[in-house]
Amino acid sequence: MIEPIAQALDWVGIVVFATTGALAASRKQMDVVGFALLATATGIGGGTLRDIMMGLLPVFWITKPVYLVLCVGVACAMFFLAHIPQSRLRLLLWLDAVGLALFAVTGAEKALDAGAGPIVAIAMGVVTATFGGIIRDVLAGETPVILSREIYVTAAMLAALVFTVLSAMGTARPGAMMAGFAAGLTLRAAALHWGWSLPRYKPRPPREPR
Amino acid sequence: MIEPIAQALDWVGIVVFATTGALAASRKQMDVVGFALLATATGIGGGTLRDIMMGLLPVFWITKPVYLVLCVGVACAMFFLAHIPQSRLRLLLWLDAVGLALFAVTGAEKALDAGAGPIVAIAMGVVTATFGGIIRDVLAGETPVILSREIYVTAAMLAALVFTVLSAMGTARPGAMMAGFAAGLTLRAAALHWGWSLPRYKPRPPREPR
Amino acid sequence: MIEPIAQALDWVGIVVFATTGALAASRKQMDVVGFALLATATGIGGGTLRDIMMGLLPVFWITKPVYLVLCVGVACAMFFLAHIPQSRLRLLLWLDAVGLALFAVTGAEKALDAGAGPIVAIAMGVVTATFGGIIRDVLAGETPVILSREIYVTAAMLAALVFTVLSAMGTARPGAMMAGFAAGLTLRAAALHWGWSLPRYKPRPPREPR
Repeated sequence: MIEPIAQALDWVGIVVFATTGALAASRKQMDVVGFALLATATGIGGGTLRDIMMGLLPVFWITKPVYLVLCVGVACAMFFLAHIPQSRLRLLLWLDAVGLALFAVTGAEKALDAGAGPIVAIAMGVVTATFGGIIRDVLAGETPVILSREIYVTAAMLAALVFTVLSAMGTARPGAMMAGFAAGLTLRAAALHWGWSLPRYKPRPPREPR
Repeated sequence: MIEPIAQALDWVGIVVFATTGALAASRKQMDVVGFALLATATGIGGGTLRDIMMGLLPVFWITKPVYLVLCVGVACAMFFLAHIPQSRLRLLLWLDAVGLALFAVTGAEKALDAGAGPIVAIAMGVVTATFGGIIRDVLAGETPVILSREIYVTAAMLAALVFTVLSAMGTARPGAMMAGFAAGLTLRAAALHWGWSLPRYKPRPPREPR
Repeated sequence: MIEPIAQALDWVGIVVFATTGALAASRKQMDVVGFALLATATGIGGGTLRDIMMGLLPVFWITKPVYLVLCVGVACAMFFLAHIPQSRLRLLLWLDAVGLALFAVTGAEKALDAGAGPIVAIAMGVVTATFGGIIRDVLAGETPVILSREIYVTAAMLAALVFTVLSAMGTARPGAMMAGFAAGLTLRAAALHWGWSLPRYKPRPPREPR
């Protein structure tokens, strides 16, 4: 019963992130092949890096190329439909929040499955959730999302942390996944709604003349 | 008879891309070590990513370090000769088109050899052909080539597609490689000559007030 | 006796580079999670890429997650202490030089250990020493260090070269490591102190009208 749930969550996450990649392509007014490249890199980038670092090779979309087809399909659809969600930017940010919380949990879950300990599982959740967006921003020549947004990486970390701790305490996988997902999504949603951010580093005057 | 041909095509592609990396270094007025780094990253970057994602490790240039020597040699030569092709930018763009079509075909061929299906083979052709240039642009701090150029990724995709489809239909490898190479090069050449580009995404006015 | 020395050098290198990552985060006034991400990516990025390309998977910090804890610890400490080294930028550059020379030697050593030949070992030393900084600069949206600094990559190459040549000539590992480290650090230190740089590419007028 776990497999189908994790699988379904993965699909939703990939579609959501592929959509954000296609929207980045629309902001740059790329052609349809540019849409396909950015959507695919964003949708599968985080999971690809996770698989590479864990040594789970070949990476997941090579054994299941349907993921590629899915990302390209999303890109083609968005090429004609991007003007709709663009007028609903708020909706898009919420979908992105869903993808972030989803990938943080499924990323951590795959790491645990592969035998990793809790620290590595949390790190893999964060990598899976954030790296697709980082690749998207580098390819599109935009400011990396990790620099500009309030409470973003932190929400991914919270989702992976809650899932991993609950799993370690013996909670059944589906329950731990739902709890982690809910925690990460709630934090990111609150940050979006109320503009929450963590305190930032503030330079102080040097203690002595240079 | 296939091996030597694929091998020779690979060498030509690496030399061509290493040359474009060295030319990027010359635009940034780097020193000779910067030339070597950019030439090497551009020449072997796409194939390295392909090997990593396919799980063909260690990557190809670790078992055959002569590829590294070749890229560094190209870099040293270009450090003294870059002023010549710079005055022949047109020639360089054509060489780059040759490299793009070559790597798309050899990248797809290595994926098929490793047991991949047609979709993955096409994706690997595109990755091999385009990623060296992406790495070059990120390292040199330039706008990624995939954003600025007309019909570039598309030509790589066509080359890989033609090769893969012909191979699947039973055409002998050398013939399929030549046909894919010719198709990709022709499309890119036409795009260079007549300024062809695919239609780009054009934002439409939002359907409703935000 | 070699293992503990190589191990200790590795720890020092990771702490030094994690510190430079945290300082980049402080320049961008990120929050503490941003500090952790940049410090970790900078501290372990070079070694991660080396392990991936060599096929030494899963990468080193997955089997020894204490490296992650170390980087996050450095990030948290720097979040409160970054104003101190900021007033001692000179000191920081020297620490960075130490890390560069260390990683060039330990990176080449791991490659030799894994059975690589001398050319690949030198390349791996350079990759390990420089790639963490490249990742840091890309994530922080700064000009890649390899573009802006005088004699930087070259010092890494010298350290790896000296170590590798001495090892090939039969020198005991600890001696070869110390010699390589000293050579790389001295060159970089001299470049910092006297502003040394290699001659840069200077465009010449074209030989013929374009």
